[in-house]
Amino acid sequence: MNDSTAASFDYVARRDSLWRRVSSLETQPDCLLVSNLVNIRYLTGFTGSAAFLLLTGDRTVFLTDGRYIEQVATECPGLETRIRPVDSSMMALICESIFESKSKACMIESDSMTRAFYRDLSSGLGGQVELLDSTGLVETLRSKKDSAELNLIRKSVEINEAALLSTLEKMQRSWTELDFAWQLEREIRERGGAGFSFEPIVAAGPAAARPHYHAGATRLFEHQFFLVDWGTEYKGYASDLTRMVCIGSVPEKILEIHGIVAEAKKAAAATLKAGVELKTVDAAARSVIKDAGYGDQFNHGLGHGFGLEIHETPFMSPAFDGTFVEGVVVTIEPGIYLPGIGGVRLEDDFVVTEAGCEKLNALPDDFLVAKID
Amino acid sequence: MNDSTAASFDYVARRDSLWRRVSSLETQPDCLLVSNLVNIRYLTGFTGSAAFLLLTGDRTVFLTDGRYIEQVATECPGLETRIRPVDSSMMALICESIFESKSKACMIESDSMTRAFYRDLSSGLGGQVELLDSTGLVETLRSKKDSAELNLIRKSVEINEAALLSTLEKMQRSWTELDFAWQLEREIRERGGAGFSFEPIVAAGPAAARPHYHAGATRLFEHQFFLVDWGTEYKGYASDLTRMVCIGSVPEKILEIHGIVAEAKKAAAATLKAGVELKTVDAAARSVIKDAGYGDQFNHGLGHGFGLEIHETPFMSPAFDGTFVEGVVVTIEPGIYLPGIGGVRLEDDFVVTEAGCEKLNALPDDFLVAKID
Repeated sequence: MNDSTAASFDYVARRDSLWRRVSSLETQPDCLLVSNLVNIRYLTGFTGSAAFLLLTGDRTVFLTDGRYIEQVATECPGLETRIRPVDSSMMALICESIFESKSKACMIESDSMTRAFYRDLSSGLGGQVELLDSTGLVETLRSKKDSAELNLIRKSVEINEAALLSTLEKMQRSWTELDFAWQLEREIRERGGAGFSFEPIVAAGPAAARPHYHAGATRLFEHQFFLVDWGTEYKGYASDLTRMVCIGSVPEKILEIHGIVAEAKKAAAATLKAGVELKTVDAAARSVIKDAGYGDQFNHGLGHGFGLEIHETPFMSPAFDGTFVEGVVVTIEPGIYLPGIGGVRLEDDFVVTEAGCEKLNALPDDFLVAKID
Repeated sequence: MNDSTAASFDYVARRDSLWRRVSSLETQPDCLLVSNLVNIRYLTGFTGSAAFLLLTGDRTVFLTDGRYIEQVATECPGLETRIRPVDSSMMALICESIFESKSKACMIESDSMTRAFYRDLSSGLGGQVELLDSTGLVETLRSKKDSAELNLIRKSVEINEAALLSTLEKMQRSWTELDFAWQLEREIRERGGAGFSFEPIVAAGPAAARPHYHAGATRLFEHQFFLVDWGTEYKGYASDLTRMVCIGSVPEKILEIHGIVAEAKKAAAATLKAGVELKTVDAAARSVIKDAGYGDQFNHGLGHGFGLEIHETPFMSPAFDGTFVEGVVVTIEPGIYLPGIGGVRLEDDFVVTEAGCEKLNALPDDFLVAKID
């Protein structure tokens, strides 16, 4: 991707902020090896698929291989770069670079580094450098979006909604779920989106009871309604929405759960605010659904952060601890799923503020209507 | 994806074959925890994005969460399944299942399991179960394709080539690299492909010197030639090809390196055969390029296996050991890259046989020509 140049992010400030965090840790690491590629993109602008970043107090060393020489020069001008020789391993280059930094305690990203990589790194360093575990260091920085990021997310949401409305206007009676998804992607790209931010769900009738169904050869008009869960990628940044579409006479049961889900979504949004616990927002939606008698039919978390990735920290569910801070962007997406009958999910995108939250999308909660002759 | 049902794979045989391998290991594991989702798809048919598989000598237990209840029933009928309760963690369910199996030594997939997951698992098992590292167990099984898989790969290659030729026929003078990629994807889908198997490279002129460039706003006709590296996903299986396209007067230097690259590809294919070392095939191509004086300008491996993933074991480069066996499917893709001028890469897909190899694609090595008014 060469869209990373379109927005100007302050990568140096991001790295400084990360290093301040790292150097304040009790375990006193004297270097950090960043291995998660999305984190590397966030810290450098590099969008390739093979790189490591070694941060110390006074240096940032970017490690990659020969395929990316030109790309690094374009995307990360000025960054100190070391290229893996074709007859050597990346692991050898990493160990060499850590030794050169004279570090005695290297922090690693434990939730992206594999067990096998860890073992090899440990053995490559031969006991001379202690490895310190960390989880979510860069991810936590990433969860709080700056204004340049928020602008891209807003644009992503705007394209996403416009693409759906245009697709609904063009709908044809012969369309399968896949045809719908195909037109939707076209509309996204024609508006400047890079494509979908994830494989969309277009689920007609009973398939809507499968929260992670995608799209198949089912003709939409064989059913009365369908669910669309779709997102746009715009200059690296995602959006993520879910709406229900009416194309016939929607069964009473589905209308009933639609009302409950909309209520649950509103209840959650009403609690979303900087300083509030993640679990509080999840519970607000969950209790509405439980009180209506469908507690067991809402079998996933309430929502998730998104940005460079479609699923980022924070995650809202009964199982996750944590507190919202200003600038966090999340989905709220309660659902009720009735096997054999269908399901309803409604999903909006929000940015957390000191005062509460701002909804980033404009589509109403109601069933959308497809125009057909 | 619901295309997994289209081909009938013998998942039980695959799991049996895996278990035979595991139980013959010196370390004598009494269970295997499969955590890599592609491996889980290979062993069960499940195409969702959250699952674990626990194999013991007499049982296979499939672990997932509530979102996938319906999908598991459709994709993996008959499999013993346990669903994570919404207020509990997957880790708790995994540990519980391992304890239930009465295992004392559990093998894990060390190159997909993260360091953080390993620590949590280790702590959850509280020293009662030993964790044994493994790498590439299922991947090695996957590298040897059976006839049902080969049929899907052949079809994927066929769609891929037809889509390119059709795109070249429709080319317009105004097209950017992205326009070309967009039409190519359309052609793939119209032929039954699920889409690209990876983000394609459409690189005009000097951009062709960046082996992992993608596609941008550059108008193709501002240059004399371009490179296309593209693949189709068909029922989960990939193809992967690279060709050069002529749209003007191709510079002498590019014609020269094109000839060398074509020669290198032929030399490599001539050595490809069951029983031959991976390095031998890499060296065959590399020495042609080196002898021509461009050794330093071929700065990546020669090729890679593909199937359910676009990059699978085996990998051919000076750095990888191993030997080809019958049924392995690989790319051969030498290239020469001249920064500022452009690059040439040619890539074919092969299946390894006892007698040698079979090329799966039909396009000639020559520069393809786009038809324009």
